[in-house]
Amino acid sequence: MQKLIKDLIQKNNTKILLVVLDGLGGLPVKGKTELDAARKPHLDALAAMSACGLHIPVAMGITPGSGPGHLSLFGYDTIEWQIGRGVLEALGLGIELKNTDVAIRVNYATIRDGIIKDRRAGRIPTDKSRVITEGLQEKIQKIDEVEIIFASGMEHRFAIILRFSEPLPSGSASIKDTDPQIEGKPPLSVTAETPQAERVAKIVEKLIAGITEVIRNEPRANSVLLRGFSQVPDMPHFKEVYGLSTLCIAVYPMYRGLAKLVGMYAPSLTGNLKEELAVLKENYHDYDFFFFHVKKIDSYGEDGNFDGKVTKIEEFDNALPEILGLNPDVLIITGDHSTPSVLKSHSWHPVPVLLKSPYVLGKTCKRFTERECTKGELGIFPTINLMPLALANAGRLKKFGA
Amino acid sequence: MQKLIKDLIQKNNTKILLVVLDGLGGLPVKGKTELDAARKPHLDALAAMSACGLHIPVAMGITPGSGPGHLSLFGYDTIEWQIGRGVLEALGLGIELKNTDVAIRVNYATIRDGIIKDRRAGRIPTDKSRVITEGLQEKIQKIDEVEIIFASGMEHRFAIILRFSEPLPSGSASIKDTDPQIEGKPPLSVTAETPQAERVAKIVEKLIAGITEVIRNEPRANSVLLRGFSQVPDMPHFKEVYGLSTLCIAVYPMYRGLAKLVGMYAPSLTGNLKEELAVLKENYHDYDFFFFHVKKIDSYGEDGNFDGKVTKIEEFDNALPEILGLNPDVLIITGDHSTPSVLKSHSWHPVPVLLKSPYVLGKTCKRFTERECTKGELGIFPTINLMPLALANAGRLKKFGA
Repeated sequence: MQKLIKDLIQKNNTKILLVVLDGLGGLPVKGKTELDAARKPHLDALAAMSACGLHIPVAMGITPGSGPGHLSLFGYDTIEWQIGRGVLEALGLGIELKNTDVAIRVNYATIRDGIIKDRRAGRIPTDKSRVITEGLQEKIQKIDEVEIIFASGMEHRFAIILRFSEPLPSGSASIKDTDPQIEGKPPLSVTAETPQAERVAKIVEKLIAGITEVIRNEPRANSVLLRGFSQVPDMPHFKEVYGLSTLCIAVYPMYRGLAKLVGMYAPSLTGNLKEELAVLKENYHDYDFFFFHVKKIDSYGEDGNFDGKVTKIEEFDNALPEILGLNPDVLIITGDHSTPSVLKSHSWHPVPVLLKSPYVLGKTCKRFTERECTKGELGIFPTINLMPLALANAGRLKKFGA
Repeated sequence: MQKLIKDLIQKNNTKILLVVLDGLGGLPVKGKTELDAARKPHLDALAAMSACGLHIPVAMGITPGSGPGHLSLFGYDTIEWQIGRGVLEALGLGIELKNTDVAIRVNYATIRDGIIKDRRAGRIPTDKSRVITEGLQEKIQKIDEVEIIFASGMEHRFAIILRFSEPLPSGSASIKDTDPQIEGKPPLSVTAETPQAERVAKIVEKLIAGITEVIRNEPRANSVLLRGFSQVPDMPHFKEVYGLSTLCIAVYPMYRGLAKLVGMYAPSLTGNLKEELAVLKENYHDYDFFFFHVKKIDSYGEDGNFDGKVTKIEEFDNALPEILGLNPDVLIITGDHSTPSVLKSHSWHPVPVLLKSPYVLGKTCKRFTERECTKGELGIFPTINLMPLALANAGRLKKFGA
């Protein structure tokens, strides 16, 4: 489908703004979902004049991670473009990855006499973990001409990037996890699953030996378990497939990392919604497409904090008039997946969406809620169709066939 | 899917009538779409007792041309079966195409000193253009044993068919347009993109030279630009895949041409809706399936004439009792795409549809409008699914699996 879209693209001066309220969709508590409970006059009024519906990020029943949730919004097939855990972890820690890299998600672990006693090294505090990781970086910078980058993370988790001097062939990261996912057993050996991965596996073996040498006297974090060996997928960029110049406005590094995978410009950013809005306004004239990411709604959902999620939805609603003031040609407000606070996690439920443009029916939904969105003119549809729809509403797609 | 359908087909004496109100769907102007605004008591009453929904011809966001719009209604995959511009132009001019043919869409152009001055030869009047084209046909009938057929068109446009003496292998029409799509440059050379096309390209070179020799003293139409070289796709016929004998009732040649591609009998026909109805009645006992095409609703949409489109919908509504009088087992009323008068063009919006048969729920939609159809029992679905649904409602599909 992306090939067809690419063939139909025509350029113009329209602006498309995709607002992702992370983890937006929810489930009822005493009959009301978070969207039902929130006082959000601007979102409701906007829904009434917009095309509404619900979208399914991967497939019915499938709960998406943040990777597939976003790539699907960006119009990429989530089965074709799978982002490895190592890559996602590294992106989340703010590392810029290249096609010369293998990224690995790592746990500190406690190992005695070759047997794993604690897969998480007693959930060692982040401060302590950071000191150890920085110590590792000081002592280990290269193994056989391969640059080694350590990226500190939360508690026992961190990431390691092997940076080779030239682009790696695909399949180079096909290495089995060394984490057996169970305690009372030894770590698994480093096993290459493809011939291309053998060279990388040898570096990894030396790396584990080197790390263990440095930290062997730590009381808890005296060893490491490696998972999710992966390479950056070589994804076609927004400019190439959609002809769009793009700006990602996101506070969390992982979302910026995902945006960079598809070629978005994603400057570092800290702060809250107010700062994100300021960046949007400052840069509004310089790009065609804006990916505007709002994190906190998901975070409260993950915490099981219904009221917190409601408050964050209301906070966005307060800011909505500022966004509407920019008058984008196409405005989409949705989530990357649902995060019902009753589930305290991402879920498989379809995600409410509204699309405002001059070319919609409107008047099919009274408010912006999950139940009202089932009445919308967009129906319940695969998330991957959202980008073509945005492009169509922006007048950026030619007719198919004569 | 068509293979599955073919395996499940069983024959009976039911009649299926597919009414295509070309460009049916619309968008609101002051809150009302053309279907909202039209006074159409018969269509509304029928919708209330029918299965309703909206269908998507190609994919969300994709605006279909008439080719994919109709082929999708006929149950054919529009990505697999793409109709070239040359073929569509020739069909539109009433030419019967064979598997020995390459069809080309041609513009008269003004060229001076090898440089294109006007790609449309000053939009030369149709009368004048016809005289020139007839002159060409008189002087050029064959090039190297290949028959050359000139078909006059509107203004600067016409079509040329190269008719070889035997069926051409696929790929024979893969030749680049000679029209550079810009003035101030010379025409592009005739370039074959496949080995099979080389033979055809040589004929085309001689053809262009021959044409230029004939018309070089014309003040404006002194040269030609060629586009959309294409062959007729070898599509399976309705009889073969659905076991249906078919009649196409359409006034415009292009729709008859599309119907012929799938093996429909499509007699020449002139006149208005009244004449089309007469043909339907006369032939009602002789066919299983009727494709009944009503053009003018689309034409007014393309002109941006909201009221005109409304009037044509009302005109069809007046005729509807006559159609209902035939009491077809399955009656479908829909469009091949939407043509909102606000857009003055085809659009990507899903197309309202109603399906009347004894085997529907009904009572989900009060009227036949875009918004009411979002409540319908058919939902929002790919157009290609409509034919299997029609066949099922006609009792023409066996059970799948035991």
